[in-house]
Amino acid sequence: MRMVDLIVKKREGGVLSKEEIAFIVAGYTSGVIPDYQMAAWLMAVFFRGMDAGETALLTEQMAASGEYADLSGIDGIKIDKHSTGGVGDKTTLVVAPMAASCGLCVAKMSGRGLGFTGGTIDKLESIPGFQTTLEPGHFRKVLQDVGCAVTGAGGNLAPADKLMYALRDVTGTVESIPLIASSIMSKKLAVGTDGVVLDVKVGRGAFMKDLESARRLAETMVEIGKRAGRRTAALLTDMDRPLGRTIGNALEVEEAVNTLRGEGPSDLVRLCVELCATMLCVSGTHTLEQGRLCASKALKSGAALERFRKMIEAQGGDGRICDDPSLLPQASSTVPVLAQKDGYIAAMDTQHIGNAACILGAGREKKGDQVDSAAGIRLRKKCGDSVTVGEEIAVLHTNCPDKLSQAERMVREGIRIGLPPVQSPLIVDWIGL
Amino acid sequence: MRMVDLIVKKREGGVLSKEEIAFIVAGYTSGVIPDYQMAAWLMAVFFRGMDAGETALLTEQMAASGEYADLSGIDGIKIDKHSTGGVGDKTTLVVAPMAASCGLCVAKMSGRGLGFTGGTIDKLESIPGFQTTLEPGHFRKVLQDVGCAVTGAGGNLAPADKLMYALRDVTGTVESIPLIASSIMSKKLAVGTDGVVLDVKVGRGAFMKDLESARRLAETMVEIGKRAGRRTAALLTDMDRPLGRTIGNALEVEEAVNTLRGEGPSDLVRLCVELCATMLCVSGTHTLEQGRLCASKALKSGAALERFRKMIEAQGGDGRICDDPSLLPQASSTVPVLAQKDGYIAAMDTQHIGNAACILGAGREKKGDQVDSAAGIRLRKKCGDSVTVGEEIAVLHTNCPDKLSQAERMVREGIRIGLPPVQSPLIVDWIGL
Repeated sequence: MRMVDLIVKKREGGVLSKEEIAFIVAGYTSGVIPDYQMAAWLMAVFFRGMDAGETALLTEQMAASGEYADLSGIDGIKIDKHSTGGVGDKTTLVVAPMAASCGLCVAKMSGRGLGFTGGTIDKLESIPGFQTTLEPGHFRKVLQDVGCAVTGAGGNLAPADKLMYALRDVTGTVESIPLIASSIMSKKLAVGTDGVVLDVKVGRGAFMKDLESARRLAETMVEIGKRAGRRTAALLTDMDRPLGRTIGNALEVEEAVNTLRGEGPSDLVRLCVELCATMLCVSGTHTLEQGRLCASKALKSGAALERFRKMIEAQGGDGRICDDPSLLPQASSTVPVLAQKDGYIAAMDTQHIGNAACILGAGREKKGDQVDSAAGIRLRKKCGDSVTVGEEIAVLHTNCPDKLSQAERMVREGIRIGLPPVQSPLIVDWIGL
Repeated sequence: MRMVDLIVKKREGGVLSKEEIAFIVAGYTSGVIPDYQMAAWLMAVFFRGMDAGETALLTEQMAASGEYADLSGIDGIKIDKHSTGGVGDKTTLVVAPMAASCGLCVAKMSGRGLGFTGGTIDKLESIPGFQTTLEPGHFRKVLQDVGCAVTGAGGNLAPADKLMYALRDVTGTVESIPLIASSIMSKKLAVGTDGVVLDVKVGRGAFMKDLESARRLAETMVEIGKRAGRRTAALLTDMDRPLGRTIGNALEVEEAVNTLRGEGPSDLVRLCVELCATMLCVSGTHTLEQGRLCASKALKSGAALERFRKMIEAQGGDGRICDDPSLLPQASSTVPVLAQKDGYIAAMDTQHIGNAACILGAGREKKGDQVDSAAGIRLRKKCGDSVTVGEEIAVLHTNCPDKLSQAERMVREGIRIGLPPVQSPLIVDWIGL
């Protein structure tokens, strides 16, 4: 078999066989197939796509390129939860302990943030002492003792994905549904949970800007999961506005704690309940409606908060932040952004606001950059709220005061004051339930 | 400027500016842009194409990536002639001295053959002593003294093309009209003649299998030449049958000599006269009709043959082959292929027959392979000829007798005996005159 022939086959719209896909993934991972042939093949895939069978085979081969996490012997039905990335998305911090309180085992391997989107690992690292690089034995022990654990995706998990993603990033081949889907799902398959719930974000603050692409991505990932024998479902959720009222690592942990205490903003509470209910439904233990009741009860009873505290402590962190969020890192400078006219918050350019938080220090522009745990934005107003001139619409937090004027301008540009907007629904659809 | 942004721009169907194309060609030639980004860009060009302006800019930048040949101070109007490659195409050997006899200066830098197509350099090297790697000064002297010279494309002529072609060959990005056109024309621009005549072959023995692609390639190359200020025209010619009656290096030199002596097969004579007439027309010295008369006269008078002898001797070769072609290398084994039924030669699979000649030793499967000058195929019958059982339809020549049975089977498979065919015209069209 020659790689150049497989490039031409895909270029001409052919469907690759299992043997051909295995040849490509194994060859590229081992270095036998050079970057330039892989780059040409990825661009051919960008234009020609892959059918459901090819995409599932590609994903399985990418998962098989490295080791599988060993979750055997751990009690409970193991469910993974994944978000495609948004602005202010701290749902994992709430949903993992919530679902654990409802009897699931939530094994989560997470990533760091890049660009305008945050990453769960960065958020958790704002908790003093919290360890995000767990040895496999430690990860298993936390899972067994607490029912939920979050670790960075380390080791040799789906190395083909790491190599392919790095190449796609520099060859203009990121925006391909089968390649995005196989990248996400290869890691899910390698973690090896019984089920997966995917939160596919759509809107100006998400990678998928339009509903049609988001739906296709969700359907593709659900199909991959099902073909691999995993119970898989996806929610399509709105990212035309930031989720909750905070953007930035420590600020989001604080908001997650408040939500676990029953004091969260309504959009965040709603999405967390729906995600937890979907996980319970996918596990086969609850209907969706039963799941919603169980999730709400875990919040009201304080059981979810206690589970979060236990997870923090089991991973070396300071559990007292659950009682006193002021123990989290605090920024040296806080500056309000004031409304310049009367009206309603008509729209928020979510990506723009995410980029402003990134500039304040909350995110990284390129891999390897340090993030400032305390930096970020607290939104005083949400879409639809009325404002009067001089009223605070947001507060900027940073340890780099020289970034404030640029960030303030971006936030102001990103928030439009006008007539009250017609709000789109937060949960757009379920796929695969 | 970042290469990844230019890849995405082309991927999305954008039109690249002069600065962007210069950045790509210079960056790739110098090694700043890596192979994997260039491969992704080439695949994006395969799918999106390039407009006439982009293609001309790409070609000019590729020519500008190295040195230009210096033809200044040499008398006469300098015209280049290029064939896109076929089976049995020995026209350069006839046309170069013919056009020189008619007053043109034919400066030809040629390549070697690959696969089923031959190369002029390989053919000329079958002449004892003939030198195909001329120093620039030697090339200029032969041109000045004889009016025609053929040398291998050496030195630093369009290095971007060499690099890009090698990459396209292994990344499935060969079959793109703007990339093929810019590859050919970049070398023509770097040679720097006043005019260029292109023989674009179409049919089963050519790279362009269908008329529409061949016409687009011809139009694209003519447009590139005209935008670069060169007088440029193209002929579309039939390659659904081998040209003339011989395939193989020494066999083709012999046939070229016979043609220059006025004893050539009618299709070869016709094409050589038309190519020479087109060169004279492009030079501005003759009309097409005047050019045909001048070309025919150069054959009848023996002037073209004498010019060929002079060129051979000026390039170190044995000019006596013009009187006695048996001085050319002769194969140790010759085996006839006999007709197995009565009828007419209905069709020849030209590529198949070209591959058979390659197997006998006349061509190379990959770059760097040696060729056997004496190997090849002599066709006793041409399309439309009648045959009876047991009659010779071809004779195989080789120094590797163990290849004979495979080649004989291929020739037999490639020649269909049946009803007399409807012959397609040899010269399909002129572009750019």
